[in-house]
Amino acid sequence: MLRYPLLTRYSDYDTKGHVNNAVYLTYFEWARVQSWQQVARRGGISEVDIADPPLIVAEARVKYVSPANIGVALAVEIGVKEIRTKGFSFVYRIVASEEDDRLVAEGETVQVAYDYSAGRTMPIPPEMRAALEGM
Amino acid sequence: MLRYPLLTRYSDYDTKGHVNNAVYLTYFEWARVQSWQQVARRGGISEVDIADPPLIVAEARVKYVSPANIGVALAVEIGVKEIRTKGFSFVYRIVASEEDDRLVAEGETVQVAYDYSAGRTMPIPPEMRAALEGM
Amino acid sequence: MLRYPLLTRYSDYDTKGHVNNAVYLTYFEWARVQSWQQVARRGGISEVDIADPPLIVAEARVKYVSPANIGVALAVEIGVKEIRTKGFSFVYRIVASEEDDRLVAEGETVQVAYDYSAGRTMPIPPEMRAALEGM
Amino acid sequence: MLRYPLLTRYSDYDTKGHVNNAVYLTYFEWARVQSWQQVARRGGISEVDIADPPLIVAEARVKYVSPANIGVALAVEIGVKEIRTKGFSFVYRIVASEEDDRLVAEGETVQVAYDYSAGRTMPIPPEMRAALEGM
Repeated sequence: MLRYPLLTRYSDYDTKGHVNNAVYLTYFEWARVQSWQQVARRGGISEVDIADPPLIVAEARVKYVSPANIGVALAVEIGVKEIRTKGFSFVYRIVASEEDDRLVAEGETVQVAYDYSAGRTMPIPPEMRAALEGM
Repeated sequence: MLRYPLLTRYSDYDTKGHVNNAVYLTYFEWARVQSWQQVARRGGISEVDIADPPLIVAEARVKYVSPANIGVALAVEIGVKEIRTKGFSFVYRIVASEEDDRLVAEGETVQVAYDYSAGRTMPIPPEMRAALEGM
Repeated sequence: MLRYPLLTRYSDYDTKGHVNNAVYLTYFEWARVQSWQQVARRGGISEVDIADPPLIVAEARVKYVSPANIGVALAVEIGVKEIRTKGFSFVYRIVASEEDDRLVAEGETVQVAYDYSAGRTMPIPPEMRAALEGM
Repeated sequence: MLRYPLLTRYSDYDTKGHVNNAVYLTYFEWARVQSWQQVARRGGISEVDIADPPLIVAEARVKYVSPANIGVALAVEIGVKEIRTKGFSFVYRIVASEEDDRLVAEGETVQVAYDYSAGRTMPIPPEMRAALEGM
């Protein structure tokens, strides 16, 4: 698992002072971008694929465990679960980092390797697989 | 199922010209608000609960089926699935309304009745249950 | 001036129940897209330029006049002010449409015609000028 | 002027790969929150007013100077300009921090001190004035 402090924005909070439910998918996306930049740079991935990995998100799931009020410091953890031939899952935990890592939300996204030039899914390239295994 | 045309915003689209994955949860939320206003008004629900129903979202799930490029007209369908004692599910379909309702995304959210003054979950109030059964 | 009902989203509202200040620029953008689609279709503009007009936003300004609480129906009005050689202004009014058009916010954006293939500003094309003059 | 690195999100970028024009107001807001937390903590301001300062935004203005493409590291600078009896201005610069601080956007917001319990504007409280003068 990799872990990053989350910088929330005032506009992330709803009328009840909680992070809006849709924003968690944005936090997950942010964690994906951060972690991919980090592991891909170590792994001989081309600059093009570091900036814009050949992946599409096929599914997303969030479980809202406890509310994140404005002022509560958050962190996001991301890990890789189950790498198959063409797809794999990221798993996420959002925690209240100054409250003993109280669990705020957890979730999962399924990604599929995608050849944008051919317009179809493809097997995960070996160097991407190696980078993901190192997360 | 209730159905509404979706008014997308330019900022919903990402660098590839597709609706960003997190925005679908915002579309689902919009469909919840629209449909709740519609069914609650017919059902003798108090104005307070029409404006702000005593519910929290406990889980959300999206499956991304085909991309929604900028310029593609979208509609959202929402229905109720499985009403239990304290919770129930909304199910959603996002379709390309001018392309034979090609399925763009589908999903589900689980809601739990919540007594905000007591700060705890509660059984679904009978008039809310009746309104949901009419969807 | 052209006028459109605004479909707000729950996530537009902040912790005080007001439309967040940044969201007004999104409402302005939405009004630009709607009005451009409407006037450009009448005016012999190419499909490419209807979908994606050769313009960049150079400046934006918002004046927040009165708050828009959740539940208040809004409309946006957009007009063209001062068409110069390369640029022109849109002016906007956001009103509470069920409260005698109480003024919520007003603003202005300056657009400049931009030749994306050449990577530089250009004079406003004549058919775009004609379409804008009809707004 | 205070300065902060900006953590952009993938959803901030539009179909052309640029930061969407409305998002700059969110960046300005983020800079206000960061800088207020920083200066207010030094200045004997109550915890309530640190978390939620008694201010409303009355006007905002952005000038878009050069585009911020995805991958370009950004920083935001914020300063105070002209403190009057009831209101004052923040000024902002968004710069490309790894490109010799190339100016991407600049802007200004006008804030007015607001007594939320009384529902009306008020003179800027002396300790808020002192904190702002220290920015």
